[in-house]
Amino acid sequence: MADERAAALEHARGNRDRYLNELIEFLRIPSVSKDPAAADDIRRAADWMADRLRALQVERVEILPTAGHPAVFGVGPDAGPSAPTMLVYGHYDVQSAAPLDDWESDPYEPVVRGEYLHARGASDNKGQIMACVGAIEAVLRSGAPPVNLKFVIEGEEEVGSLHFGDLLRENRDLLACDFVLNADTGMLGPDRPTIFYGLRGMYSCHLTVSGPSHDLHSGSYGGVVHNPIHALSALVAGMHDCERRVTLPGFYESVTPITPEERAEMAALPRGMESYLEQSGAPELWGERDYIPAEREAARPALDIIKIEGGSSKAAIPTEARASVSVRLVPNQTPDEVHEQLLRYLESHAPPTVTWEVTEWGGCPPALTDRNAPAVHALSRAMETVWGKPPIYYRSGGTIAAVGQLQTVLGVDSLLTGFSLPGDHVHGPNERIHLPTWEKGIEALVHFLYNMVE
Amino acid sequence: MADERAAALEHARGNRDRYLNELIEFLRIPSVSKDPAAADDIRRAADWMADRLRALQVERVEILPTAGHPAVFGVGPDAGPSAPTMLVYGHYDVQSAAPLDDWESDPYEPVVRGEYLHARGASDNKGQIMACVGAIEAVLRSGAPPVNLKFVIEGEEEVGSLHFGDLLRENRDLLACDFVLNADTGMLGPDRPTIFYGLRGMYSCHLTVSGPSHDLHSGSYGGVVHNPIHALSALVAGMHDCERRVTLPGFYESVTPITPEERAEMAALPRGMESYLEQSGAPELWGERDYIPAEREAARPALDIIKIEGGSSKAAIPTEARASVSVRLVPNQTPDEVHEQLLRYLESHAPPTVTWEVTEWGGCPPALTDRNAPAVHALSRAMETVWGKPPIYYRSGGTIAAVGQLQTVLGVDSLLTGFSLPGDHVHGPNERIHLPTWEKGIEALVHFLYNMVE
Repeated sequence: MADERAAALEHARGNRDRYLNELIEFLRIPSVSKDPAAADDIRRAADWMADRLRALQVERVEILPTAGHPAVFGVGPDAGPSAPTMLVYGHYDVQSAAPLDDWESDPYEPVVRGEYLHARGASDNKGQIMACVGAIEAVLRSGAPPVNLKFVIEGEEEVGSLHFGDLLRENRDLLACDFVLNADTGMLGPDRPTIFYGLRGMYSCHLTVSGPSHDLHSGSYGGVVHNPIHALSALVAGMHDCERRVTLPGFYESVTPITPEERAEMAALPRGMESYLEQSGAPELWGERDYIPAEREAARPALDIIKIEGGSSKAAIPTEARASVSVRLVPNQTPDEVHEQLLRYLESHAPPTVTWEVTEWGGCPPALTDRNAPAVHALSRAMETVWGKPPIYYRSGGTIAAVGQLQTVLGVDSLLTGFSLPGDHVHGPNERIHLPTWEKGIEALVHFLYNMVE
Repeated sequence: MADERAAALEHARGNRDRYLNELIEFLRIPSVSKDPAAADDIRRAADWMADRLRALQVERVEILPTAGHPAVFGVGPDAGPSAPTMLVYGHYDVQSAAPLDDWESDPYEPVVRGEYLHARGASDNKGQIMACVGAIEAVLRSGAPPVNLKFVIEGEEEVGSLHFGDLLRENRDLLACDFVLNADTGMLGPDRPTIFYGLRGMYSCHLTVSGPSHDLHSGSYGGVVHNPIHALSALVAGMHDCERRVTLPGFYESVTPITPEERAEMAALPRGMESYLEQSGAPELWGERDYIPAEREAARPALDIIKIEGGSSKAAIPTEARASVSVRLVPNQTPDEVHEQLLRYLESHAPPTVTWEVTEWGGCPPALTDRNAPAVHALSRAMETVWGKPPIYYRSGGTIAAVGQLQTVLGVDSLLTGFSLPGDHVHGPNERIHLPTWEKGIEALVHFLYNMVE
């Protein structure tokens, strides 16, 4: 298939500007899955994606409803029964762009500055999914497809893939495949192609600490009634010890230790303290003292309060204070066990001067995938062809609920890759994608598809 | 003046419904001094108050501008050079009514339910100031006034009387007086008339703790970068020790100990643990273990975080977290010394993984007034006449910046009283005033005015 491969690469290069313009069109849709007011935009993004798959001449394209936002499904053309079936996973929803004031340009009016395209979703995940689409178009236009193709592009990744498990269960046959291509991660640097073989899981909940039955004048009650803000602050502060370890009882018991081999591998990564400092802008790094930052990100659990709020500008002791708890899990932690640990922590640490409640809890397990799968080797060779060096193998500190759900329901591993770079401000203001890397990513995916059968 | 006294009491009783309707009219104006959008309502409230003073036939009424909201000034009629001059202090501004959902009725549509009138400002301070106005009208309609009368009704009490000191300095001669009547406090119970001889002062500021330069994906940086919410929570938690004492260095050094006599007096107050529990709705009380609640409220300092905020519902480590610090001061603490103590605390406790900043700091000193002043005796006798029992002497845990400013600039003490009750939800939702107590208050003030010269 050397001719097809060359033709496909040529097609990808020749259609670079159109690919970029299509991405820009897609990025203009503010498909914020968390925003109830964005329902029309969510639908518009799903339709846009379905149309794009139809333009690929994918044989059958459907919008599959869920109890939440729909998923876009596509299948074909057929590569024959002996060819493996690849399911392309992605998501057309994005995180909120707030706070808008911190953006240098409108998050939904994509703009190229230098080598970067800036917009919400430029990396996560619209840019990445359009890299897959671009590569697949190039292959389909250049001859018979080397693999059987299926697509499932969901609309709820940024809200924890709430209904994706149900979708898989209800469409098990439709989505049956040999492996999943998931380009929702990234690379460690522009010359550091990366394959991820693991993801952290997630446990999240809302914690409310309540005190008086109504706002109290802080003159009359200051020093007399426990301020729920103080009680919540103490509970939050107590969730880490002075060694920066999480204090929930039993928290580390089911954590799989990092093997000496993996530690050596992570120590050799181009992901040292300096790179974290530079990319975060933090005055210093922080975290468990016995682990290097790369280990803390990928292979150690972490507890973050992503939101805290309570009180007002009134001189009053408020009735309650609230925190949103977000815990990144590593094998073999489970959301259920962390939930129980949090409850036990609160039971033993919350003072009797306040009451507390944990609500809206949920999560997804961490994942590890087989580094020796054929698809991993095919992608590795593709990356070496494009970047001139083999990929780095690393685990992602992020969470993609769908990966665990695909493992559980369909029994398939996900090939985790992507062309986002560490400074691309994923989830933050000024999200961007590095266009030269994106274009290389498209070429790498072209090679990967042919490598699957060669 | 027995005839005048009887006539004045008769006038007050005969005009009770009109007095109530006037108060309701005043309460309908949402004069929230903190709300920039309420400027028109602030002006409307000042005009309303000025008109009301004019209707009293106060000789000269002016609206005195300040760099912020104006104050309403009135003087006369003349009681002769041998009569003392009383300055009636009050404020026509109110606290915000947020959160509106917690109100059982519109905060600006006053409604009588049972013996209570409900509205924002019903107690603080529109109800109280209208009790003074009602008593003074009754006296002025019944003969020559026993004291020379002046009024200063400001519009910035709820934002710390920001420009009241300047107003006093600029109008020193106009406002010269022998003492101030300040009905901005309350009573310990419907049958517990109270004279306050002290107030707590206030120190306040905003504390911002900053970490990364942009919101960071909590998957990539959770466990690697210090979350400013965690750092702020630890700083807030550390501001009290396990004995519930404030840990700012030197915080208690200039606190005047409570004398054994005062401790005995406070122990005898009808202000025990049960009353605080019932009025606050808190599961338990809290505070310094060596002091009873009444002492902690009135004669011990207290530190409260009245607001905390940081992060969003995004799974991100935010760039910063913020807290509003509010410290109630007792003699002889000063706002300046507490500011220095807070800075020293932060310097020694903030970790190098974050930066911090204290902004918008300010405050006012605590106050103690002479319990043996003639006006105190006159009011005490008046209360005994109306309630059949002598008043309780207590210190208020609240802060009225104007009291210290009047002491400093005009050299006069304030007679601190009021007819608000502990359950009146001052500053909170469902603020109210107990109408039978309010009416007794008007009568007590009538007696007080005649007692000043008899």
